[in-house]
Amino acid sequence: MTSSSNAYAASGVDIDAGNRAVALMTAAVQSTYGPEVLAGVGSFGGLYDAGRLQSMTAPVLVASTDGVGTKVRLAAQAGRYESIGHDIVNHCINDILVQGARPLFFLDYVASARLNPGHVAAIVSGMAAACRQAGCALLGGETAEMPGVYSPNEFDVAGTIVGVVERSRRLPRTDLAAGDVLLGLAASGPHTNGYSLIRRLFADVPLDTVYPELGIPLADALLAPHRSYLRVLEPLQAGPAQPVKALAHLTGGGLIENLPRVLPGGLSAAVPLTDWPVPPLFHLIQRRGGLTIEEMFRVFNMGFGFILVVAPGDVAAVQAGLPEPAIVLGKLVPGARMVQLLS
Amino acid sequence: MTSSSNAYAASGVDIDAGNRAVALMTAAVQSTYGPEVLAGVGSFGGLYDAGRLQSMTAPVLVASTDGVGTKVRLAAQAGRYESIGHDIVNHCINDILVQGARPLFFLDYVASARLNPGHVAAIVSGMAAACRQAGCALLGGETAEMPGVYSPNEFDVAGTIVGVVERSRRLPRTDLAAGDVLLGLAASGPHTNGYSLIRRLFADVPLDTVYPELGIPLADALLAPHRSYLRVLEPLQAGPAQPVKALAHLTGGGLIENLPRVLPGGLSAAVPLTDWPVPPLFHLIQRRGGLTIEEMFRVFNMGFGFILVVAPGDVAAVQAGLPEPAIVLGKLVPGARMVQLLS
Repeated sequence: MTSSSNAYAASGVDIDAGNRAVALMTAAVQSTYGPEVLAGVGSFGGLYDAGRLQSMTAPVLVASTDGVGTKVRLAAQAGRYESIGHDIVNHCINDILVQGARPLFFLDYVASARLNPGHVAAIVSGMAAACRQAGCALLGGETAEMPGVYSPNEFDVAGTIVGVVERSRRLPRTDLAAGDVLLGLAASGPHTNGYSLIRRLFADVPLDTVYPELGIPLADALLAPHRSYLRVLEPLQAGPAQPVKALAHLTGGGLIENLPRVLPGGLSAAVPLTDWPVPPLFHLIQRRGGLTIEEMFRVFNMGFGFILVVAPGDVAAVQAGLPEPAIVLGKLVPGARMVQLLS
Repeated sequence: MTSSSNAYAASGVDIDAGNRAVALMTAAVQSTYGPEVLAGVGSFGGLYDAGRLQSMTAPVLVASTDGVGTKVRLAAQAGRYESIGHDIVNHCINDILVQGARPLFFLDYVASARLNPGHVAAIVSGMAAACRQAGCALLGGETAEMPGVYSPNEFDVAGTIVGVVERSRRLPRTDLAAGDVLLGLAASGPHTNGYSLIRRLFADVPLDTVYPELGIPLADALLAPHRSYLRVLEPLQAGPAQPVKALAHLTGGGLIENLPRVLPGGLSAAVPLTDWPVPPLFHLIQRRGGLTIEEMFRVFNMGFGFILVVAPGDVAAVQAGLPEPAIVLGKLVPGARMVQLLS
């Protein structure tokens, strides 16, 4: 049992397994450090120099904790641990990006009945890679062995991100209006939501099955890491003007539950299903589950992981300024704070 | 399945249970908000106004993630969920206090196979109470239902704290020297460490058993919440001088593994066991487990949850400045970075 309370420690009953995991992940973790990390691996808490916040006019810290849900079970089944690290970091990055924030640092929590050092190191390596891509420090974490709490061979992964935004650049803006346009950025797959359902629907299907409409093994389609939209949106955020009025991250609850969270009272989103290109994987899921389209939109991102709300006059400029397509998916209309799927 | 990625959301398979838990805990969470909390319950990420960091000379953010380990199993057995909330928050507060930081905000993660809204609300209420006592905002959290990952009726609790310290007031200081004195602050019990062992040793003992040497039911002795030392040390930190050279939080690994983490090379801690008053509970544990005193000091805090390292000339003033006894437990001597228990 090693200490449980610090930037990269392991607690639990097997000292050696914990220490091996810590050693394996140390190099990966340190690869995320910039000069602002004053202490990380081995200290009681990670230290992050907040000096650059002082050059901001009115910095606001934005923080979020999340888990990856039961996608961990599918990942374990397929032996793909590194991708889970990408999942949790990118999920968290997107959550605070919704409020206009860029990430400063991330801390993780990995727990299981019995620590497998190789698996933990792979998960943390994935986290470190995702952090590096985002310019975010992997400042600390905790790995815990809790026999009896977790089912044998199962594990859980959670993470906390802290970022910062200028108070005046916080999103959503307050000027959302009827007529504003919804633009969608493509998802890489179901991201980290709907996996309890997915696992049930595909329980009897080998993960190397290649469905003709997918053209790739089922494991690849289902375990594609959650995308981060940070770099995609960076060109828009760099300028003095803020053309994006609001952002939504389509996680659990899909468009139906997530978009209204950034809408003011008096506005609905009208989304014609004819304009929404649903990727083949979601058709496959819907067919196997015998689900309605409304149910699908309430569980899955349906192919778009991030939604931008933009004034009609800014749509062309925003689309031109992004490094990838942003598809017009609908618009805001007067109404209750909800999503109307129009068939 | 509600959204999974925000300040107080619930994810999982049972929408209603999740939403009930969120409703029950909302009031408790909001009771921790000061004016610096710009957004909490219901938003994608919690927003914390960092304006007051700008009045600091060189603010350093200090962050730590931790879990409460298998104490959760004992708490569940005794039906004491609220105390687990105190445990995780106070554990995290102490971890960053070691580096001289005071807490700004906390985020939690509570996961189980099946969410019990009442239990989750009790846990979060405990967290909120501990946060209020520390002037710390409970800025966000995540509750997750993960059937299959967790054993039936089991749950896990983790948390992340973010605090701040002036760069010049960071601990440990760099002037630790042979002759410096170790002062101990009393623990309230085993805090959050050693519970896998405790549970094994007392597996066949009813939790309402009153051992004569304890004088209280076993459940009370074993489940006393982890203390926070923030308010105890505040009088010392308020002054312009910094009389404390280093602090150690005795979590998993006990004195043996935690104190060396704040020692520089070339210094050992010499601790005469004759000077260390071991509380009856730890004698009881040692007897039942047939453990050596070294093993005990490597697993448990042995009655002192926090250690202060102070120059010999400052001992009297530090003791006088604290609201409770600080016991002399040993001193620093030349040697390898370790603890020597002297019998």
